Amino acid sequence: DQDLLLAAAYVSDAQYNRNVPFETSPQAIRLYHFYNHWTMRAATYFFIWVDLALALFEEPAVFPLPFLVTSIAEVLCLTAFFGRLVHFAKVTPQKVFWKDTKNICVMVTIVLTLIDLVIYASLEAVNIRGVRWSRALRPVFLINFPESRQIRRAFRSIRNTLPDILYVFLLFLFSMMIFSLMALKLFGDRGLRTVEGSPYFTNVLDIAFELYVLVTTANSPDVMMPAYELNWWYSLYFITYIIINTYLFMSVFLAVVYNNYRKHLKNEIHTLAYLKRHKMTEAFNILKVKVGTAFVVKEARWRQLVKVVAPDISSSHLELLLRISDEGQTGHVDKMNFLRLTDLLNIRVVAINIKRHPLETWMPRVYQSSTSLLVQKMVQHRIFVWVYDVIILINTIFIALDEKDSLISYAEWLFLSLYIIEILLKLYTYEPRAYFGRNQFWNWFDTLIIIAALLATVANTTIQARKYNSQQILDIVLILRILRLLRVIVSIQRFRVIVTTLINIGPTMLTFGGLVLVVYYAFAIIGMEAFHGKVHFLDPGSGSPDALVCGNPALKDSAFARGRYCKNNFNDLASSLILLTELTVVNQWHNILSEERVFALLADGFALVTHQAAKLYFIGFHVVVVILIVNIFIAFILEAFFVAYSLEKSEVETAIEKKIQELGVGVQEEEVQDGGLIDHMDTKDSGFSADDGDNRKKALKGLYFRIASKKYKTVDTLLQQMFESEIAPEGKDPSLEEILNFSPKKPNYDNSA
Amino acid sequence: DQDLLLAAAYVSDAQYNRNVPFETSPQAIRLYHFYNHWTMRAATYFFIWVDLALALFEEPAVFPLPFLVTSIAEVLCLTAFFGRLVHFAKVTPQKVFWKDTKNICVMVTIVLTLIDLVIYASLEAVNIRGVRWSRALRPVFLINFPESRQIRRAFRSIRNTLPDILYVFLLFLFSMMIFSLMALKLFGDRGLRTVEGSPYFTNVLDIAFELYVLVTTANSPDVMMPAYELNWWYSLYFITYIIINTYLFMSVFLAVVYNNYRKHLKNEIHTLAYLKRHKMTEAFNILKVKVGTAFVVKEARWRQLVKVVAPDISSSHLELLLRISDEGQTGHVDKMNFLRLTDLLNIRVVAINIKRHPLETWMPRVYQSSTSLLVQKMVQHRIFVWVYDVIILINTIFIALDEKDSLISYAEWLFLSLYIIEILLKLYTYEPRAYFGRNQFWNWFDTLIIIAALLATVANTTIQARKYNSQQILDIVLILRILRLLRVIVSIQRFRVIVTTLINIGPTMLTFGGLVLVVYYAFAIIGMEAFHGKVHFLDPGSGSPDALVCGNPALKDSAFARGRYCKNNFNDLASSLILLTELTVVNQWHNILSEERVFALLADGFALVTHQAAKLYFIGFHVVVVILIVNIFIAFILEAFFVAYSLEKSEVETAIEKKIQELGVGVQEEEVQDGGLIDHMDTKDSGFSADDGDNRKKALKGLYFRIASKKYKTVDTLLQQMFESEIAPEGKDPSLEEILNFSPKKPNYDNSA
Repeated sequence: DQDLLLAAAYVSDAQYNRNVPFETSPQAIRLYHFYNHWTMRAATYFFIWVDLALALFEEPAVFPLPFLVTSIAEVLCLTAFFGRLVHFAKVTPQKVFWKDTKNICVMVTIVLTLIDLVIYASLEAVNIRGVRWSRALRPVFLINFPESRQIRRAFRSIRNTLPDILYVFLLFLFSMMIFSLMALKLFGDRGLRTVEGSPYFTNVLDIAFELYVLVTTANSPDVMMPAYELNWWYSLYFITYIIINTYLFMSVFLAVVYNNYRKHLKNEIHTLAYLKRHKMTEAFNILKVKVGTAFVVKEARWRQLVKVVAPDISSSHLELLLRISDEGQTGHVDKMNFLRLTDLLNIRVVAINIKRHPLETWMPRVYQSSTSLLVQKMVQHRIFVWVYDVIILINTIFIALDEKDSLISYAEWLFLSLYIIEILLKLYTYEPRAYFGRNQFWNWFDTLIIIAALLATVANTTIQARKYNSQQILDIVLILRILRLLRVIVSIQRFRVIVTTLINIGPTMLTFGGLVLVVYYAFAIIGMEAFHGKVHFLDPGSGSPDALVCGNPALKDSAFARGRYCKNNFNDLASSLILLTELTVVNQWHNILSEERVFALLADGFALVTHQAAKLYFIGFHVVVVILIVNIFIAFILEAFFVAYSLEKSEVETAIEKKIQELGVGVQEEEVQDGGLIDHMDTKDSGFSADDGDNRKKALKGLYFRIASKKYKTVDTLLQQMFESEIAPEGKDPSLEEILNFSPKKPNYDNSA
Repeated sequence: DQDLLLAAAYVSDAQYNRNVPFETSPQAIRLYHFYNHWTMRAATYFFIWVDLALALFEEPAVFPLPFLVTSIAEVLCLTAFFGRLVHFAKVTPQKVFWKDTKNICVMVTIVLTLIDLVIYASLEAVNIRGVRWSRALRPVFLINFPESRQIRRAFRSIRNTLPDILYVFLLFLFSMMIFSLMALKLFGDRGLRTVEGSPYFTNVLDIAFELYVLVTTANSPDVMMPAYELNWWYSLYFITYIIINTYLFMSVFLAVVYNNYRKHLKNEIHTLAYLKRHKMTEAFNILKVKVGTAFVVKEARWRQLVKVVAPDISSSHLELLLRISDEGQTGHVDKMNFLRLTDLLNIRVVAINIKRHPLETWMPRVYQSSTSLLVQKMVQHRIFVWVYDVIILINTIFIALDEKDSLISYAEWLFLSLYIIEILLKLYTYEPRAYFGRNQFWNWFDTLIIIAALLATVANTTIQARKYNSQQILDIVLILRILRLLRVIVSIQRFRVIVTTLINIGPTMLTFGGLVLVVYYAFAIIGMEAFHGKVHFLDPGSGSPDALVCGNPALKDSAFARGRYCKNNFNDLASSLILLTELTVVNQWHNILSEERVFALLADGFALVTHQAAKLYFIGFHVVVVILIVNIFIAFILEAFFVAYSLEKSEVETAIEKKIQELGVGVQEEEVQDGGLIDHMDTKDSGFSADDGDNRKKALKGLYFRIASKKYKTVDTLLQQMFESEIAPEGKDPSLEEILNFSPKKPNYDNSA
């Protein structure tokens, strides 16, 4: 049924906020459904990751593979990307396809990578080592496939922030210049010396660099000491500098980034909300039939649609949604309710299939005996949780103590058995399928940690008995043992709230992770090409004199070697990424730069200009990461927290909850939220037989529903809800062009602050 | 006239947001007016500052004075505070006075200080050195006098944030504990050594401290290197730690602080707006007379009131306000307009008294000659500004060059003369009183810098000629010379906007400065009592062996002495405050602590417990300043910027502007804003004679008005405006009790984010 497929495509696009214009020919729609199928998306991501991971195996490699292998793998990835692109070209109108920068970007990158591969291979054939520059372009694939909408949005947000940031940055540079000149005039002629004995503040460029480092607080208070020793009044210069350039300007950067982020996010979400409405209207227009005076969608048609859009929906869930959409049970769904469909689908309704405990079915006599009931009551009691909290705390003390003592080593077995007993008792008391329900994060966490710890401990003991010590397994055991302590968080209400909020930010945080990955990857590849092999780590135990100078005589007596920084190099992807992380945590990285000797080691006779270029690489990274990325991260966390603090139930959620309550199949959300997920749900569970005769439950017998915690929502969803209420009521929908050219006036929440 | 005085007291309280309940007896009102007189307030602040400054002169002193002198000064201050308190007690009802914690606080502090003084003096008499512990209480006076409303509000804001912060902080500590235990288990048994050769990660408390320092990024990447050398997988442990504890938790701290700050600020401002309305209604009720069916205030009465409330208001300004308040010129002001009075008074209307240039009056022939007009036209031209920008840039290059060259030294004189010529030319072209108007910040700045530079250069040359070199004067010359460069900012529009915003935040920033001062002062006094005299700075040039160990043999070979940190001590107030600033700029301060030897120097044989106590002092300071104060600072800047971005004209301002325009005495604000303050204003000025005959201007002849830049407003004022529109219209005013117990429901702007 082609109409149905087309409508389903619209609804599905609306549900996942996809904004891809597609051809409406039957074949194109079928291809489009296939294009959006999760296997195709997963395959694309798989190839993107393989392509990015290739840097681990290419020269300079963490795990070296021959060039032939990596290049074949790369060509394979490129083919996959090209295939994906062709698939997309068949789905979307030609005009749209060729206008889309994303597609052009991907094609250009594919071609450039192929050219680079060929050049590199030919140079390799005549034994010249080329530069694999196209590798820095690989993140382009991560950004430009339509699946990475969120990452693209983050980049757009950055691009929009740039002009504003730029002016603040220029002013910041200007302020730096003023202070540099002052320092030169105040301290330049004094003949002061730094602790290392080098001249202090005599060259204006060096001063500017030192002061830039002071902004990162990395050389405070060292940079100030020579002047401070001369006269304490001079410290006022540095304090003024720190207040203005570290605190004031950094806050202004944050303010500008955050303000732009909010504004931009709002505009985008606003457009998204309109587009969603637009697509749902299209779907409605395809399926509508006239009943009486109004256009509606027939119930049967509606069912078919939902089955296509959400193939794995349970029939009871479908029934629930229908009851909500067709309130009066008229046999058809009106436009208003039809438009709500995606919202209904996006709300995770957890169906709690309440069944008797298997043991109760198998041996009711034993399970219902007074001893058994006492055990169940005991396990459900609050004190049971407390007792185990105390056990965990005692365990902590034992972990902190020395493990060499065999008594303590045996105690570990005792604790492990206690934890296993706890899990068994809980499984005895609670229905296992409910205990390991989809949203029972902490139950899963608990059980997996204990089982893993058990396995690892057994493995370790076996190995130790054979006088063979595996460090990896021991490390895992140790970490698992300590992670168990996290369980204490669950017992403390306030902690659980904070952790839940943090976990909820998780999915959106992945977007942010993608953004960081793109920047880090590009910088790592550039760094590897530029600085690879200049510094080597050699085991100091080997006694080789090279070990003390990181394998490079130029580093003799340098602070770099003295500080044992040899491992901080660009010799492979892992090292590069770790080094960049260190640079982000802006400290002492100036050591890597400020020592002339380190520069001396960068290639054979880099000219002064190239020195400056190396500085530019590090400063460029710092500016991009610390001023933009870190601030956007903070803006993002701020926004996420504000949204989480201002949660309110949406209209649609309320409708679903009302219906669930009406049907008498609800589990109070508050119960689930506050009182400990398992306790209350299972109290309800054990009380099931008493309520069983209730008439109102017949409709969906044995089944309880509840809306998955309202906190399990992304910032996007919440923001979208806010704007949906603003959208004009039906009949006044703007045209697609209007929506796309839409730019809201001064958003009114700017004024609300 | 007692009614008038009472009404004026209410209006004045409303204008300055004072919320002091006062007795309404004639004598009390007179006392209350006196209490609020600026001389009394200034005197109070004077004594507070003297009291705080005493620490500079008391042992350990920057400028030592005998104990007798400082103690007499302190007693004097205490007497003044007590007098102020007695004055306040006479004004306010007894019941209110004794219920007010502020008053109790001040009294208790006075008594405690006196007790401390007596004890210290008696110990002194028998030659025992006591501890002047009461000095840490001195900031209490700064907080608790009713003048410091803003600082108190900031403290309240902190107090309200504490519970939320506390739980996040506990979770943070918990996470630190988990990571410490992991580190102990992973690295404790490996026999690793740090760069200094000390054991690596073997004691759980040391690990916790190192990891806390890692949060401040101070010991990154040093702390990671030994483990990283062992295996690069271990770096993942540190990266995870940094992501979670540095970035995530620090952002969450900011989010919690900012959210609470906003919420709390909103509540307070909301209450303030109601209270203001309440006071204005009281004033109206006192002065009202019945005219027709409505109560109004007679024009004459209104004039008297304004004269009492704002004694230095110009009669033309008064006239303008009357025209706005009595729109229909009916001879009386109705309630609605009366309530607006404080808003009208709070808007700074700048009366630009446009007069002819004095030279034009004295010698019109010369001033109006074609040469003179040409000069004036030239100075007003845009190119004139550009030429001077270029001169400043050339000057910059000369400053950056070496000054030893006598040519460059002479060039400095040339530049100075050029700047002086510029100012003289401008004074010739523009009316001097307009040029040095109240709001002409940049003109004042310019002129003062040049004159100061001129004076200092002359002084320096005179002194140099006598072969005597004064470093202080030379330093001042150098700084002034460089500050001149700031003028370039004025020429660049985007820079000027940012700088203006920053300058506008200034006044509110003073509040913040007060907050910081209170915290720093208390910590400095405690630090002085605890660590005073342990470390001495001796001039290394003296050749004394003590100089290398900061005057304390315990510091031999320590990193503290090697890093030349001797000046970082608690030997006097200035040094303490500088040290605390360094601690705020969280870097390398762990050096001061982590070295066992440094602890060894803290008093003769401090026990282990006392070591821990010293650590607690530093960690306590860090937690208070970095987690609370810095975050509140950022929150404050964020809020200020958002408010500045969302500026809109208030209703009252619009009314004033409309009236100004109606009367034809306005200078377009846009002109003043955008095109350079002076240029346009004076273009208007020079065009004055042409417009002179205009009829509409007769009302306020020769006078132009404009509203002082809308950007010159505090965050408070703007927020208050927002809420005023929400307040119920007249007749529905809530009672005073209702207002004070008022707590708005979930503020709806929480949802708007």
